[in-house]
Amino acid sequence: VANNFVPNQRMKTYHLALLAPLLIGAFSSLRAADDMTALRADFEKTTAAFHQALRTNDADSFFVYVADDAAIMPPNEAPVRGKAPMRTWYSNFLSAFRTTTLTLIARETLVDDNWATELGQYEWTLKPAAGGSPVIDKGNYMQIWKRQPDGHWLFFREIWNSSIPLPQPTSK
Amino acid sequence: VANNFVPNQRMKTYHLALLAPLLIGAFSSLRAADDMTALRADFEKTTAAFHQALRTNDADSFFVYVADDAAIMPPNEAPVRGKAPMRTWYSNFLSAFRTTTLTLIARETLVDDNWATELGQYEWTLKPAAGGSPVIDKGNYMQIWKRQPDGHWLFFREIWNSSIPLPQPTSK
Repeated sequence: VANNFVPNQRMKTYHLALLAPLLIGAFSSLRAADDMTALRADFEKTTAAFHQALRTNDADSFFVYVADDAAIMPPNEAPVRGKAPMRTWYSNFLSAFRTTTLTLIARETLVDDNWATELGQYEWTLKPAAGGSPVIDKGNYMQIWKRQPDGHWLFFREIWNSSIPLPQPTSK
Repeated sequence: VANNFVPNQRMKTYHLALLAPLLIGAFSSLRAADDMTALRADFEKTTAAFHQALRTNDADSFFVYVADDAAIMPPNEAPVRGKAPMRTWYSNFLSAFRTTTLTLIARETLVDDNWATELGQYEWTLKPAAGGSPVIDKGNYMQIWKRQPDGHWLFFREIWNSSIPLPQPTSK
């Protein structure tokens, strides 16, 4: 009987060693779901702060969320590539217009392991810096966000357009 | 000595059982990389065929790649939601214009586990169905594609805009 004692103890150790990968396997899908929930929560928090910076004309806060290699594709002009050129572009924008309201409608967020997309429609009230009546634009937008190694999200690409019909050419 | 034979055999079995999860662990990153290569290859093939259908005004081939819950956000009009309304929209488009050339420039593809994005710039030559000079549009686009359970990709969302400056309002 005493002869069997040592092997039994060792087998018990093996049992525990076997249990570990089984437990890891069983819980890995739960852990992955938890990771995705955390990723989504961080994405929602980040994009909310980003849009709030835009609403309050706060360029410094806005660019905290922008990747160095970001680019925007505004309508009716060339794309703006890189964080520094984007700063100049937004500075020019702010010298012409101040945002008074920005409402996001039919917003969708698609969060994946490395990239996240936000899209929807906007209603944007802009007050001309030179004075005069506010301008209201309505349109669509789509943004790509890039996950960083530390788990945070940075703004990477955006395109938008206006839903307002173009003025019909007047007959001469 | 004979007493130790049976436990040793059993321990050998445990060793193999222990090896299996270790080997799976060691090769899972290689397998994941292979999966991603296959996903990317399938995405490139799909999006190439999709754009070729657009180039050849082939609505039937085009809609093979479109998800039932797809939506497009064209400039200067309301978004078009659903495959059937998109068919009507494209049919109206084809009755006004035929694509003669479509060139994609500065194309980027971001392929993730569940979603893929394609974006870039386009140069699009359109021949009016009613006759007259071809129209050339240049602009930007961003598409979201959704991976299906069988591994294939379906077109899900698109937004685009024109880079051509708006005509300046003429003084009265």
